Amino acid sequence: MPMIHHHISALRAAIQPYRAAQRIALVPTMGNLHDGHLELVNIAKQHADIVVVSIFVNPTQFGVGEDFDSYPRTLDEDVAKLATVGADYVFAPNIDEMYPVLPPPTTVRAGAITEQLCGKTRPTHFDGVGIVVSKLFNIVQPNVAIFGQKDYQQLAIIKQLVRDLSYSIEIIGAPIVRAADGLALSSRNQYLSESERQTAPILQQELQYLAKRIGGNHQPLDVLLAASRQRITSAGFVIDYLDIKTAQLDSLKTDGSSVNFNENQQDLVILVAAWLGRARLLDNQLVTANTV
Amino acid sequence: MPMIHHHISALRAAIQPYRAAQRIALVPTMGNLHDGHLELVNIAKQHADIVVVSIFVNPTQFGVGEDFDSYPRTLDEDVAKLATVGADYVFAPNIDEMYPVLPPPTTVRAGAITEQLCGKTRPTHFDGVGIVVSKLFNIVQPNVAIFGQKDYQQLAIIKQLVRDLSYSIEIIGAPIVRAADGLALSSRNQYLSESERQTAPILQQELQYLAKRIGGNHQPLDVLLAASRQRITSAGFVIDYLDIKTAQLDSLKTDGSSVNFNENQQDLVILVAAWLGRARLLDNQLVTANTV
Repeated sequence: MPMIHHHISALRAAIQPYRAAQRIALVPTMGNLHDGHLELVNIAKQHADIVVVSIFVNPTQFGVGEDFDSYPRTLDEDVAKLATVGADYVFAPNIDEMYPVLPPPTTVRAGAITEQLCGKTRPTHFDGVGIVVSKLFNIVQPNVAIFGQKDYQQLAIIKQLVRDLSYSIEIIGAPIVRAADGLALSSRNQYLSESERQTAPILQQELQYLAKRIGGNHQPLDVLLAASRQRITSAGFVIDYLDIKTAQLDSLKTDGSSVNFNENQQDLVILVAAWLGRARLLDNQLVTANTV
Repeated sequence: MPMIHHHISALRAAIQPYRAAQRIALVPTMGNLHDGHLELVNIAKQHADIVVVSIFVNPTQFGVGEDFDSYPRTLDEDVAKLATVGADYVFAPNIDEMYPVLPPPTTVRAGAITEQLCGKTRPTHFDGVGIVVSKLFNIVQPNVAIFGQKDYQQLAIIKQLVRDLSYSIEIIGAPIVRAADGLALSSRNQYLSESERQTAPILQQELQYLAKRIGGNHQPLDVLLAASRQRITSAGFVIDYLDIKTAQLDSLKTDGSSVNFNENQQDLVILVAAWLGRARLLDNQLVTANTV
């Protein structure tokens, strides 16, 4: 079983002896672990000797009226699952330990990249991510940290944070883990009713459909996107966004026409966020230049 | 002589072996070192086995029209001085090394505490301090860092940053080092003409005068401050601010009357920033509750 620490000082004391000669990995989570999280640990173990998994439902990344109170907390089950994949330490602080002053007066803001996509409808979310990730980096001082690619924008923001704040931490994005029917695993999937759960894989199907058609000489992008949005909405979703960006999350410089990959040679990403009942689902699909 | 490193990776590799069993101190400076800086190193050596002095004129903490271009750069002399006090490593990066993207999109902002005093007339200054100090903390990962109390607001901001971002770094404020006539040492004192240099100690004399009179049953605070401002202005200064705050930089809750220390039992600080010719001079005086 992994060792559990609830206090910063105890965790730091426990991992300090490894710093001289071994690599430490951090896997930040909000708990309620599923196979996607366990895959983060598997990847962490390939890049480090010691794996620290943090479990903290971070209040500062939830907005007013969001699901902070109802977010599932399942520490005992989480620890049992982490034992099966060989995590070494669990850091499970309470709110006071992480935020002696809440909200903290200090902000860590990654700038323009946070203002698009999820940042438009969750305007305080990435400030909360920025501060909690900075804190976890400073507490654990890992050599490597693993984040899921399902939260594509979050991963891009954290890479920028590491560059801009000179953290000497290797950031690894882990591929999305999906259910057999294609739905990206997420703790929030349990908010879905049985019939919503049947509907949910449509998001991923639309991403795959678009991925096959955005290169070459298919329809103009805005026509493709409009048709996808129509189908997703008709299936019962309320779309937050469905958009195509460069892999760095820059906007495409197009006049709405299809993208010629042979010309631009850029990797793209299709991103979607949509509500289905109580669940806000995220998904994305990378489209690399040499695959179309 | 201390070892000089210009690159982050080289510095980190050099100090990595000490992490297991020895304490590392960071002394951040902008170079052009005087006896005040050397005292920071002396204090650092009392708290750590290895002392790293950073020398970096940080562009992001200078505003438009400020003295970034003319700020004195004297690396060779600085290193020679650091040798006399036994600093172990000098980290002297160039701007590209510290800021691959300038300005960096990420901001580290300490909130309301930055908006008063120096923050009013230098609105971007403490954002620059926030990011460069975060970067230096992440690069060096010191156990302890030493900052001068002359920059009182900066020291308070850094203490808050350490708390809010969970840095495991002990922050030590070093007493102000003064010339024989009382002027606080500063690299910017060399901007003073000979006659301005004769005038400059008036700032410290006024702080001492106020410190003796703000407790007990002397004149109301606002009357005392107005008279001090008048004398400082008459001597040829242009005052940025002269104010009295709690030691935590909260505003005093008074009706303008004198502070009764026996009642409030709070430590206070008198802070001044004033231009004399080309030089913007800073000074401050702590007034502890049990001294009046």
